[in-house]
Amino acid sequence: MAVARGDEPADLVVKGGRLLSVFTREWLEADLAVADGHVVAVGPGYQGRETLDASNCWVAPGLIDAHMHIESSKLMVDEFARAVLAQGTTAVVADPHELANVLGVAGVHWLLAATAELPLEVFVMASSCVPASPFESPREPLTLDQMAELLGRDRVLGVAEMMNFPGVIAGEGGELAKVALAAHIDGHAPGLRGRDLNAYLAAGIGTDHEATTYEEALEKRRLGMGVLLREASGARNLVDLLPLVKLHGPDHCCFCTDDREPNFIVEEGHINQMVRVAVAEGVRPEDALTMGSYNAAVQHGIARLGALAPGYQADLLILDDLVDFRPRLVLKRGRPVGAIPPVPVPAWVRSSMNAAPVTAASFRITGSGRLVRVIRVIPNQLLTGEEQVEPATHGEELVADPARDLVKIAVVERHHASGRVGKGFATAVGLKRGAFASTVAHDAHNIIVLGVDDADMALCANRLGEIGGGIVIASGGSIRAELPLPIAGLMSDLPLAEVHRRLTAMERMLLDMGVTLPSPFMAVSFLALSVIPDLKLTDQGLVDVPNFRLVPLEVG
Amino acid sequence: MAVARGDEPADLVVKGGRLLSVFTREWLEADLAVADGHVVAVGPGYQGRETLDASNCWVAPGLIDAHMHIESSKLMVDEFARAVLAQGTTAVVADPHELANVLGVAGVHWLLAATAELPLEVFVMASSCVPASPFESPREPLTLDQMAELLGRDRVLGVAEMMNFPGVIAGEGGELAKVALAAHIDGHAPGLRGRDLNAYLAAGIGTDHEATTYEEALEKRRLGMGVLLREASGARNLVDLLPLVKLHGPDHCCFCTDDREPNFIVEEGHINQMVRVAVAEGVRPEDALTMGSYNAAVQHGIARLGALAPGYQADLLILDDLVDFRPRLVLKRGRPVGAIPPVPVPAWVRSSMNAAPVTAASFRITGSGRLVRVIRVIPNQLLTGEEQVEPATHGEELVADPARDLVKIAVVERHHASGRVGKGFATAVGLKRGAFASTVAHDAHNIIVLGVDDADMALCANRLGEIGGGIVIASGGSIRAELPLPIAGLMSDLPLAEVHRRLTAMERMLLDMGVTLPSPFMAVSFLALSVIPDLKLTDQGLVDVPNFRLVPLEVG
Repeated sequence: MAVARGDEPADLVVKGGRLLSVFTREWLEADLAVADGHVVAVGPGYQGRETLDASNCWVAPGLIDAHMHIESSKLMVDEFARAVLAQGTTAVVADPHELANVLGVAGVHWLLAATAELPLEVFVMASSCVPASPFESPREPLTLDQMAELLGRDRVLGVAEMMNFPGVIAGEGGELAKVALAAHIDGHAPGLRGRDLNAYLAAGIGTDHEATTYEEALEKRRLGMGVLLREASGARNLVDLLPLVKLHGPDHCCFCTDDREPNFIVEEGHINQMVRVAVAEGVRPEDALTMGSYNAAVQHGIARLGALAPGYQADLLILDDLVDFRPRLVLKRGRPVGAIPPVPVPAWVRSSMNAAPVTAASFRITGSGRLVRVIRVIPNQLLTGEEQVEPATHGEELVADPARDLVKIAVVERHHASGRVGKGFATAVGLKRGAFASTVAHDAHNIIVLGVDDADMALCANRLGEIGGGIVIASGGSIRAELPLPIAGLMSDLPLAEVHRRLTAMERMLLDMGVTLPSPFMAVSFLALSVIPDLKLTDQGLVDVPNFRLVPLEVG
Repeated sequence: MAVARGDEPADLVVKGGRLLSVFTREWLEADLAVADGHVVAVGPGYQGRETLDASNCWVAPGLIDAHMHIESSKLMVDEFARAVLAQGTTAVVADPHELANVLGVAGVHWLLAATAELPLEVFVMASSCVPASPFESPREPLTLDQMAELLGRDRVLGVAEMMNFPGVIAGEGGELAKVALAAHIDGHAPGLRGRDLNAYLAAGIGTDHEATTYEEALEKRRLGMGVLLREASGARNLVDLLPLVKLHGPDHCCFCTDDREPNFIVEEGHINQMVRVAVAEGVRPEDALTMGSYNAAVQHGIARLGALAPGYQADLLILDDLVDFRPRLVLKRGRPVGAIPPVPVPAWVRSSMNAAPVTAASFRITGSGRLVRVIRVIPNQLLTGEEQVEPATHGEELVADPARDLVKIAVVERHHASGRVGKGFATAVGLKRGAFASTVAHDAHNIIVLGVDDADMALCANRLGEIGGGIVIASGGSIRAELPLPIAGLMSDLPLAEVHRRLTAMERMLLDMGVTLPSPFMAVSFLALSVIPDLKLTDQGLVDVPNFRLVPLEVG
């Protein structure tokens, strides 16, 4: 306060810039004084031990990702921090349920430890749905007691996305017990409207990030939900949802990336990409930046973050313009972000694979030849469709039929070497030869394999066991490319640029193999997620999500 | 949730009305279903055991007073609840520092008990400044431990207005210790701007209700303060502040009455009067109602109050129009507000007067005849001015001079029978004969007396001792009128209409005695409040508020 009074010099004074007030959503011509990592004053004439010239620049609060899974970046947390801090994201609210599925609650405690010293603020929500449904097989379920233990820790804000929305709506005791653990509960309610939406809200759910249309988002906001506008690799919903902001203002809206792949971060950025797109689409920059910072902090009840005002943490961006939103400089707690030292990864985090070996026979499907249920992949959406198709047959065997774009899909349990394999068919993929597989397969992260050749499928799955998890492509009986993800089978220990280079090359390879699906690895990674409609596949079999039950491959 | 799903009938369905969504600030044509006192659904087609026809009506959330002192209504809490519920106020955030000054912390615990069963929701802030300054003499100071004890109780939201803003800005340990007790701290910063405002905010203060100009309120909001627009009997700031809403939107703004006299409530209403005025001045009704409900709940971190949405408490108003805002019906927790039984008052609350008897000589002032400091009362403001005037003399005595509108003012200590009397002069009052006195004299609530006749002043003060406190008028050597306020010397046990009738008659009597000051009892009750500039009087003497020190009557 002595600094604010002008009696002592500040640690740093940012001079000459235009500062965003998120409280009036306008630019103030004022200096900003920092002491002990916090803004202590906004006004003229402050002196500091250091001075930062922000003439002709805009100064905005650091951006906050309101809902995301770090694991989807495929980067270790230190490298993730380097990547997004450069884009102006200074805090994220992470649901670590990928780690929790693979490593149990110990994985979440490890994440909290691994992020404790980062200049990126990593808030955590206690994962609520491990497994996401009874149809998935994680290493072990996350128990109510374990959630409560997490909620007692620093930086844990509330209960993470309640993905089992049918269970909540039905009033299932287990789900309501989770909701009762905290006052702040994130939702996950794709397509939910009307009475079911009312019931979900009456249970105490506060936010949603799954709206895909303006009308759906508007209904949710009218009923009191915080709307987390999403721009994920597999679900680019931002432009569709922006009318909500343009017609009803930015209140109760913030931005989230949910699941964003490395290429998206490298090529377009992070939350700053959402600000850029929103402004390009006609949202006022002041509104877009406020949604990207303060509104996210408010939505999660994070005090003293997301604004340039006395008492707030001095996380801020120096911007050259209000078009590009790539920061010239990022300050975290009042200091320019410097080099981030590597965070060590313990051996147990690096040895998560435990799959039984498979052979080509493991992927054989037999049947009568009647109509089968086929998963129709939808580009850039997490939703899938269901088609009912007459399968190609080979005697009693039902086989892939690349000519009709029917590929085989399988999920191999990989936590307890049970040898369990769920099998089915998918379309709108385009694969003409070989197979590809990944241990990134939401949410249980068993091995998901797509292929038109059973031997190549087996080759992929077995190779993943050898390299500690990752992504591989095989054709003609040999592995063609691979990206190891040894950290829980989810994250690389390589730099972002290298991860991006390899994934890009592998996507190009899939293109050569006929794949027409954009972002195929991300798209495929959601085909095992049994809580997003319509038809999914887990190691337990095909899941009819709207009716929340396992269904046989053959119809009727 | 079964009701929200439509599987079970609601307790009540409000049908056919237009419902305010505070989240989009628009009207929805929808039914509203209530179960267990909460809104469980908003939408079409719900069935209930009871139905309320709201056709052609507007349905809004119950109004919330964001900062107030119940004691200023001069009503016992049950009668206050009857009065404001009828106007649509369903919750108040009360700082009970008047009771705390008179009764100690026991008075606050009593208030919590006395309001526990009311259909009006009474939230409490832990009074932070008892006494308001070292220049005032309450029964006993409220200690840090007592504040912490209060903060542990249900319905206590945070630390009440930190009136000792100079102490906070100076970084005094005692004041910072109070701020450290809670995350949510109300401010009180009349006229505070620039560096001092920055320092006050850096200490962690969250709100302010003392702004009197648009520019001041704008500066405070830009820096992150919640702006509680005030419309008190002694400080009608609303119209002056409305440009903040019209130019910058309703975010971070809400309404408060602070200190509102009975006549104001009877004649104009409560928070609904502020909504009415705001709308008449051009604010959108949706914005005004949102400020009057949801925004106040957000500002105080009150969950599940102030909105018509699933999970929110079913406090709501049925309105016939968007002009008058006098509700046709008020529902609290989903039920029409019925008769409120009387709340008993214990004997110790009724016996707070302990003043030493005074005589005319107690009010004699002697001096040299040099310039004296005179309190200039400012109509409809809590601020006063200071004038320096040559006094009228009578030998060594300095006397009142009605011809020049110079009246005597005195404050008689009344908690510990110390016999201490602070004396001075005031102008812009108009009194031509006699005297009047009150035990409502913020914040210590000692006896404040204004008069042009020392004997009448003594008569008034002694009479207040006899009736347990209240307001009296004397002239020509006898008591002319009185309103007993036996509850802590602050509140009546009569109905609002009777309190209003008596006060109106007494104000008329003062008018006959020459008084030109509007709302004279309220105005006078702030002349002893040593934390609002410029010049005030306590039992300890004249207080120069900007310099925060006692000053002698005579200049230099």
